[in-house]
Amino acid sequence: MTTETQIIQRLRRIATHPAARNLQDDAALLDGFVITHDSIAEGVHFFPQDPPTSVGWKLVAVNLSDLAAKGARPVAALLSLTLSGDDEWDLAFIEGVKAASESYGIALIGGDTITLPAGAPRVLGLTAIGRAGANTPARSGGQPGDRLWVAGTLGDSAAGLALLTDDAEAVGVLVDVYRRPVPLLEMGQALAPQASAMMDVSDGLLLDLQRLCAASGCGAEVELDSLPLSRAFIAERGNDRAARLFAATGGDDYALLAAFPPEIDPAVTLSLPKKPTLACIGKLVAGSSVMLTHGGEAIPLPERLGYEHRTEPPPMGDRG
Amino acid sequence: MTTETQIIQRLRRIATHPAARNLQDDAALLDGFVITHDSIAEGVHFFPQDPPTSVGWKLVAVNLSDLAAKGARPVAALLSLTLSGDDEWDLAFIEGVKAASESYGIALIGGDTITLPAGAPRVLGLTAIGRAGANTPARSGGQPGDRLWVAGTLGDSAAGLALLTDDAEAVGVLVDVYRRPVPLLEMGQALAPQASAMMDVSDGLLLDLQRLCAASGCGAEVELDSLPLSRAFIAERGNDRAARLFAATGGDDYALLAAFPPEIDPAVTLSLPKKPTLACIGKLVAGSSVMLTHGGEAIPLPERLGYEHRTEPPPMGDRG
Repeated sequence: MTTETQIIQRLRRIATHPAARNLQDDAALLDGFVITHDSIAEGVHFFPQDPPTSVGWKLVAVNLSDLAAKGARPVAALLSLTLSGDDEWDLAFIEGVKAASESYGIALIGGDTITLPAGAPRVLGLTAIGRAGANTPARSGGQPGDRLWVAGTLGDSAAGLALLTDDAEAVGVLVDVYRRPVPLLEMGQALAPQASAMMDVSDGLLLDLQRLCAASGCGAEVELDSLPLSRAFIAERGNDRAARLFAATGGDDYALLAAFPPEIDPAVTLSLPKKPTLACIGKLVAGSSVMLTHGGEAIPLPERLGYEHRTEPPPMGDRG
Repeated sequence: MTTETQIIQRLRRIATHPAARNLQDDAALLDGFVITHDSIAEGVHFFPQDPPTSVGWKLVAVNLSDLAAKGARPVAALLSLTLSGDDEWDLAFIEGVKAASESYGIALIGGDTITLPAGAPRVLGLTAIGRAGANTPARSGGQPGDRLWVAGTLGDSAAGLALLTDDAEAVGVLVDVYRRPVPLLEMGQALAPQASAMMDVSDGLLLDLQRLCAASGCGAEVELDSLPLSRAFIAERGNDRAARLFAATGGDDYALLAAFPPEIDPAVTLSLPKKPTLACIGKLVAGSSVMLTHGGEAIPLPERLGYEHRTEPPPMGDRG
């Protein structure tokens, strides 16, 4: 065990309150409130050259995605802002926070503002508070036999990031998805009442699924052909095995991954929003491994399941 | 107006929800919960050579002090941890968080863990959630005529910091106060029901009093001789005007500053804990200035009222 894993284990041993859910979940559940905190750091979660409005939007969106994954309704947020010395950047960042907050109805109610030593990378954090619905699905509630469903499409953001890496001036739908992820709040609220487990896909489907499996004490089978891809993604990256593995491991999707008992077809049973679409991608099974098929044929798992290096090992709250 | 002030003003214009209290307060008040978030940065709020257990303790204590200032009872906390690459440091920091959390009965229920780029200063944050009492005094409730009371002593921490600046190996009561501030939770809960305004003294009495006056729309008169000093402070720094001005501007006190209507003597009316002691230091008056006397004689305000540079201008939540 690395010492870094020891640090997470140490935190878990301290966090014995039931609201903590053993720090295995995207969010805490306290007296009807779902509460999450995610920070993003320059050079790790965003690039210095990213538009500051996008960074502000993204900070809010990744936290709202955690609320979405618990079926919560956004209520209030506290912003942890480090003044960077570049006032134009800071003001534009705040505009991004404001735009996302207003779009999704979360009220800024507090936080703090600190200065950092000169030249230090920006570290920006948000605490998001939502009102829990009748059921707040944990990562740990999955059972062998449950069907796995994904709301939203996979790989768009990673494809957008790849475009930007090649050409910092790149534009288009995929770049927009990377810069301005959309938290699937309505879908999360619609799925939560009957989901046995749910989380958002922030670090890559396969990596996040592995975490859901670990928390639920089971394994999973996923059919690569069933992963939901957007037209824009297919136009850019294609639709073959390599493209689908890219989508399965890309990260920054802010899609939702939910497990439902096999007798429930959420697309039929639940009153869902029209968008995004919902796709059944496989099922939970006994064991502890994630197994992959493509065209019905078993294929090995890729070496890299997602953006593990960013927050290695499985952290409190992960990336999103 | 500096652009930095514009940033705070911009945030205030966004934060229109009543729970935000116009971002003028130490904490937000949402559905019976008092919620605060304070971050601390290496090289700004603590030194790289500070013992990591003290840093962890202090992060919890400064947030609990904000709950104390609102008369709230600690419930739960979310930790925003940046892994520094120095596992020993990180584990010791967590021990400090644990020690303070257990001492004051706040449960760690979530947060996140991120890595920073190599060499970046640590930035550590905590969201603290408390249960509000029957009254949650704001900074803004003071009225001309109210008497000003301070719970706890002033200047100890700044004196401890001065000792450490001279000699990194310094030890003693004052150094302990600097490293392990004590949030005055019981006192805050006892004072809150009848206080017209309350805040914690984190950046220096005079600076924080100026903020209370600005929020309350009044001025203040303070008699320097009435400031509560500890025996250890007097033994180290003396008891003359210079020493008392040092105590009035030192910061990191985590004392409580409360305004009470003149007909209420909290030391008589309220059921207070035996410690810390409570001292009447002056009163709120009409106007907008803080005026100082020493031995009954008016003296000019010192140029520096507190640790304004650390979080200049008056920020969301200030330093503590």
